[in-house]
Amino acid sequence: MTAGVLRLTKHHGLGNDFLVLLEPVPGLDTAALARRLCDRHRGIGADGLLVAHPGTEGADVTMELRNADGSRAEMSGNGIRCFAQALWDAGLSRSPDELIVATDAGVRNVRLVDAHRAGYLRAAVDMGPVSVVHDAPQYTLGSVEAAAFVDAGNPHLVLLDPKLADVDVAADGAKIEATFAGGINVEWIWPGPGPGELTLRVWERGVGETEACGTGSCAAAAAAMSWARTGPRVVVHNPGGDVTVDLGETAVLTGPAARIASVEMPWP
Amino acid sequence: MTAGVLRLTKHHGLGNDFLVLLEPVPGLDTAALARRLCDRHRGIGADGLLVAHPGTEGADVTMELRNADGSRAEMSGNGIRCFAQALWDAGLSRSPDELIVATDAGVRNVRLVDAHRAGYLRAAVDMGPVSVVHDAPQYTLGSVEAAAFVDAGNPHLVLLDPKLADVDVAADGAKIEATFAGGINVEWIWPGPGPGELTLRVWERGVGETEACGTGSCAAAAAAMSWARTGPRVVVHNPGGDVTVDLGETAVLTGPAARIASVEMPWP
Repeated sequence: MTAGVLRLTKHHGLGNDFLVLLEPVPGLDTAALARRLCDRHRGIGADGLLVAHPGTEGADVTMELRNADGSRAEMSGNGIRCFAQALWDAGLSRSPDELIVATDAGVRNVRLVDAHRAGYLRAAVDMGPVSVVHDAPQYTLGSVEAAAFVDAGNPHLVLLDPKLADVDVAADGAKIEATFAGGINVEWIWPGPGPGELTLRVWERGVGETEACGTGSCAAAAAAMSWARTGPRVVVHNPGGDVTVDLGETAVLTGPAARIASVEMPWP
Repeated sequence: MTAGVLRLTKHHGLGNDFLVLLEPVPGLDTAALARRLCDRHRGIGADGLLVAHPGTEGADVTMELRNADGSRAEMSGNGIRCFAQALWDAGLSRSPDELIVATDAGVRNVRLVDAHRAGYLRAAVDMGPVSVVHDAPQYTLGSVEAAAFVDAGNPHLVLLDPKLADVDVAADGAKIEATFAGGINVEWIWPGPGPGELTLRVWERGVGETEACGTGSCAAAAAAMSWARTGPRVVVHNPGGDVTVDLGETAVLTGPAARIASVEMPWP
């Protein structure tokens, strides 16, 4: 890094926005930096900070993910695409269309799918195994027709609900999450509007209703397939935009990343 | 401007944050740019965009203020300090400690008061005349002891309330604003904690509860003086930090501006 200046880039995937720091800063307190940078009024503002470190376990690079409150998170499906975009843009990746990333949730492969527009790409991320743990009939209340617990590396409760547009996600999500000691992500889903598609609304654990959730989209696809509502490939319409999920031994999540700006901040 | 790149700086005054564009961009649609840049997830994120134009009426520069929704606003006490900081930092001001700014609310004088820390300054802004229009006894409900309408270039209702910490500003502000055709700003104030001080909470017209309001601080000082609660100089504790108001023929508002970062965005 240049003495006195911190250089970052800001990106978003479906409205989930991240600041990416590629240049190493010795002795950096990333938790404090995340809190300062992600503050939407007194900093740049972002949902999280992604910091690049040398790769381990054969990976090209290690991704440290910090939430806006400074806490560490294992993995973000939207975040890892933003992270790959920053590395590809900077020419710091061994390959121009593939990146092997060590995360706290394991090694993840990111593959460039499309980059026809400047500052915009689509990438596919291997999200690891996603499995339906068991159905949760105790949650088939009101208009909910089916419910299941899904493990997508993190815990999810997926609710099949034809009236998802009317759900008070903030109220119901908080109520459901409060009954789980470690918290839980909740997805309300319904097939359509087209064939091979799902529409989703999501409560993210400890966050609230969000515009999009990568692991939630994978969990939704796995639950819908277990109920024979969709097949192994499904387009998931999140409020913030669309992703594609391909279910096999692992789930592959394909979605966009957009580069917003580069940022220079006085440091320290 | 460099072809293909838009250069801005981000600043805040008491948590009220602004992007400043100094370089002229021919044919720029500033309303559309404000909406794009101020989006907190898909843009940089800010409460408003400040665009510099050549000065008129003897002013050094003209400040165009756009809200995050693209609408045009006359003036912002926090914004104009950020605007002056950007111009002083860039060496674009005729004087290193004074700036005469043409705004939609008239010509405003900004004077540097203190700049001992890098990226941080305090500046005094002549906010023009601020006058108590008349008392509003119909609003002395509940714990409110006095109420007055104040004209600070924009309309305010100031409520003297010893229990301001308990007020539901979001609910009550919306309720009060709804009864005024053109909307209104509402301040709940109480003298203290020290002598010559006021504590304030504020509902900003069309925005909601905010951390700080420059014209609201001036209105609060004028109302409190009319009730003989404070004198012509008062420190106003906004939730986001402190400003000083000096009341004479005009109100002079002194407060901080902090430079957060410089930003480069691909353009168009």
